[in-house]
Amino acid sequence: MDIRPREQAAKWQQNAFRIIFESDTPAGRAFDILLLLAIVLSVLAVMLESVASIAARYGHYLQAVEWFFTALFLVEYIIRLVVVRRPLSYALSWLGIIDFLAIAPTLVSLLLPGSRYLLVIRTLRLLRVFRIFKLGRFMGEGEFIAAALKASRYKILVFLTAVFTLIIVIGTLMYVIEGGRHGFTSIPMSIYWAILTVTTVGGGDASPATVLGQSLASVLMIVGYAIIAVPTGIVSTHMSLLAPALAKFKQQRCHVCRADGHRPDARYCWHCGEKL
Amino acid sequence: MDIRPREQAAKWQQNAFRIIFESDTPAGRAFDILLLLAIVLSVLAVMLESVASIAARYGHYLQAVEWFFTALFLVEYIIRLVVVRRPLSYALSWLGIIDFLAIAPTLVSLLLPGSRYLLVIRTLRLLRVFRIFKLGRFMGEGEFIAAALKASRYKILVFLTAVFTLIIVIGTLMYVIEGGRHGFTSIPMSIYWAILTVTTVGGGDASPATVLGQSLASVLMIVGYAIIAVPTGIVSTHMSLLAPALAKFKQQRCHVCRADGHRPDARYCWHCGEKL
Amino acid sequence: MDIRPREQAAKWQQNAFRIIFESDTPAGRAFDILLLLAIVLSVLAVMLESVASIAARYGHYLQAVEWFFTALFLVEYIIRLVVVRRPLSYALSWLGIIDFLAIAPTLVSLLLPGSRYLLVIRTLRLLRVFRIFKLGRFMGEGEFIAAALKASRYKILVFLTAVFTLIIVIGTLMYVIEGGRHGFTSIPMSIYWAILTVTTVGGGDASPATVLGQSLASVLMIVGYAIIAVPTGIVSTHMSLLAPALAKFKQQRCHVCRADGHRPDARYCWHCGEKL
Amino acid sequence: MDIRPREQAAKWQQNAFRIIFESDTPAGRAFDILLLLAIVLSVLAVMLESVASIAARYGHYLQAVEWFFTALFLVEYIIRLVVVRRPLSYALSWLGIIDFLAIAPTLVSLLLPGSRYLLVIRTLRLLRVFRIFKLGRFMGEGEFIAAALKASRYKILVFLTAVFTLIIVIGTLMYVIEGGRHGFTSIPMSIYWAILTVTTVGGGDASPATVLGQSLASVLMIVGYAIIAVPTGIVSTHMSLLAPALAKFKQQRCHVCRADGHRPDARYCWHCGEKL
Repeated sequence: MDIRPREQAAKWQQNAFRIIFESDTPAGRAFDILLLLAIVLSVLAVMLESVASIAARYGHYLQAVEWFFTALFLVEYIIRLVVVRRPLSYALSWLGIIDFLAIAPTLVSLLLPGSRYLLVIRTLRLLRVFRIFKLGRFMGEGEFIAAALKASRYKILVFLTAVFTLIIVIGTLMYVIEGGRHGFTSIPMSIYWAILTVTTVGGGDASPATVLGQSLASVLMIVGYAIIAVPTGIVSTHMSLLAPALAKFKQQRCHVCRADGHRPDARYCWHCGEKL
Repeated sequence: MDIRPREQAAKWQQNAFRIIFESDTPAGRAFDILLLLAIVLSVLAVMLESVASIAARYGHYLQAVEWFFTALFLVEYIIRLVVVRRPLSYALSWLGIIDFLAIAPTLVSLLLPGSRYLLVIRTLRLLRVFRIFKLGRFMGEGEFIAAALKASRYKILVFLTAVFTLIIVIGTLMYVIEGGRHGFTSIPMSIYWAILTVTTVGGGDASPATVLGQSLASVLMIVGYAIIAVPTGIVSTHMSLLAPALAKFKQQRCHVCRADGHRPDARYCWHCGEKL
Repeated sequence: MDIRPREQAAKWQQNAFRIIFESDTPAGRAFDILLLLAIVLSVLAVMLESVASIAARYGHYLQAVEWFFTALFLVEYIIRLVVVRRPLSYALSWLGIIDFLAIAPTLVSLLLPGSRYLLVIRTLRLLRVFRIFKLGRFMGEGEFIAAALKASRYKILVFLTAVFTLIIVIGTLMYVIEGGRHGFTSIPMSIYWAILTVTTVGGGDASPATVLGQSLASVLMIVGYAIIAVPTGIVSTHMSLLAPALAKFKQQRCHVCRADGHRPDARYCWHCGEKL
Repeated sequence: MDIRPREQAAKWQQNAFRIIFESDTPAGRAFDILLLLAIVLSVLAVMLESVASIAARYGHYLQAVEWFFTALFLVEYIIRLVVVRRPLSYALSWLGIIDFLAIAPTLVSLLLPGSRYLLVIRTLRLLRVFRIFKLGRFMGEGEFIAAALKASRYKILVFLTAVFTLIIVIGTLMYVIEGGRHGFTSIPMSIYWAILTVTTVGGGDASPATVLGQSLASVLMIVGYAIIAVPTGIVSTHMSLLAPALAKFKQQRCHVCRADGHRPDARYCWHCGEKL
């Protein structure tokens, strides 16, 4: 995404850009923190409104709060479009779409009442929290996890395909074995039970009552319990492979002897004794 | 399995072989994708037919769909037998058996109605999906997981034997402690409860109600929660050991016997002893 | 925290200090073991008193036991304040606050009856058990786990933030999909269900009954089942990185400032720069 | 344990010893396999007898089976005592105690009927299965797991102590918060609920119904879900540290150039090309 200010922008546009899109100035940082606060408050308002007892008492206040924040986010969204160099590129980027979805439900709810609750998509805007710590530790840590998951993605896909095939086959077998009774009313319901069981969530309406069904369920449980080792092993291995790379990126070096590998809280170089 | 075309095959047999058994030509690739689509549709039809409300309305259409696909897979199966060099060898291979089981239930269901649902075994045919990506990443990733599980298999077997002994002993103790009440109606039922508990699935009809029973259940839960570390550690360790090797093992092949999987620093082929 | 005896202390104060605060003398060790026993007994008394059938019979005895131990711990607390060099520093340290909270509820319960059960905070005093083994293996092991968790904390925070965002968004979607029925009575209740499901605990009052709801629940379960690999991978990786270092880090101390935790090949102290 | 034959044993005693205590002769191996079969059958008989519907029909046959096997194991136990060099040392060893417990319940059940079900302790005798494969892979694999768990034991103990303290404190807090209602009838019951929740087993009679209770439960679930990473990381790390040691023990060496690190299925040395 091309997030840069307009080239021949008025002075106010340049200032607005620095405040809204960046967080390396005090004003930009303050804006980001206020924005996060506004997001949290507006999401809380939507949540509380869904509780019948609260809505009955404070419904009008909460709706006012909701319209207030929607108006605020709408203004913010328009300013973003005005000050960014390529408005369309921003509007179609991930951040831009989330920013839009954070406003749209309230407007749409004038036509479709139920859609208002989708405002909770605003929660996704909270991921901006990581931007505030852009220069801090969090980006590096998040990137590390993302890199490990990216490196593992094909292996995990293969694993999930195998698990899914197992779930479909065993779910159907259970439907045949239990004969459509004891909650196994159809193949999709039996597959739903198999998912509940293999992920060790448990519960649900179905519960095998025949000896053969309980034996197969036992096998499924033990398999589900043991194969969690596979994705765990995959991610651990890829993280181990990435770990040294990341560690080196962060290391400080002694400005005299260029030695690295200091403790994070070290004050003197372990190699030449120079003050770090 | 010896999957090669017949030696003195007619031209159409050779072409059919390339399309059906291989996927390195555009036609072969298109065939594989159409086949996968047919499998998904036919499995969906079987699943939907098991839902009472859908079967009542669209039952006839769904049965027509089922017979259509069964006919299609039957034709495909016969062509496979005709064009492959050793039909018996194919028919008795894993792929051949799955291909046969994907047709059989419909035919058998003329005699035994319930058996029709076993058509969902067709799902196993979906594992062919990996064939389409034969030259891509998936085979390597799948092989990696398989190799790690193969290397761990004795350790995991030892672990499962220990867990199973624990389950039987504690299940029986619970039967004695709870005195056959609170759902612990027999030793097999108590063992079923122990499996539900040690795998952290939970739920089930039995629930300890005595102080001693709840104490033993607590121990079982904490043990089940903690020992998941064992298979996880085993698989992680074996994956770590395989990770660097796999990348390098793939690179070279013996120029005489075409064996691969040599050590990165090997100078002679491990299979035929030829200098690499 | 500055835990040293008073500088110009009477002889009895010095002796009391050695017995109460240290455990390297036979008397100090005996005191610690008696203290642990007293804690266990007093916690058991509070627990048993909460069981209605036991309280009806032995309530008076249990309350007497409770007051006896509270008096004992009060005396111990006062002696600690008297013999330590900086009483305020001790009173405001973690150990000091826990020691105070172990007495307070009984006294407060004269005014607020329910608060008495908070006496179970005394359990935290049991963590003193590690002090007895101070010179043994446990401190090192505990430090190892703490160091690994400390090194992983930012990554785990990023992971939990992502999981929490997922929980809120899916919880709200479930509320919209299930239309406030089947136990999804409000967004907070739906989020509670999502937490139960993603952590694979399962159960709860809500249970999706629509096809779309069950499909989304299936996705959530499989995601919850698979992403446990992320924190596991993070902690495993950091433990692997720490494992070899820890063993060697413990060996040497700076002869000037007594700092430990040097790199195995360090030639200068990281704290004071002195040659090792 | 001193398992050797008597020094001045009769010929039949020496033969009996080789058959019963060792498994490196065909006769010894056959004896072990028959013994395992007898154990499985006798355990199955006890289990089936506990099922009311089966006991009503086949109860007499099953009791006959039970007495038959008990007599068999009694004879075996006596022979073991007669042929081993130090009978007392064998009787007090782990194996000897298990062998005794496998007979005792039937005899005791003449006085105490319920104790008969403890015969399932016979299951422990099944662990002898590993003896048959003594010279094979299983012993090494089992030893590997045991060594890793032994090396992790202090760390896991520290972890479990911390988890247990958490469970007690949160369980009590839930009792105070829920005010003894919604299934939290006493502190021990609340602690039982906390164990069910932190181990992600779920279910149980208690279920928080207040906002504060559900919030605390949410925290407990997420903590329980995330901290499984700790024992997993510990065991993984210790297994990784042990892995190279074990691998070396097993490696074959080339008899010409002494190179090791061959593939398990290699037929030629990768270094000098010699036939292995």
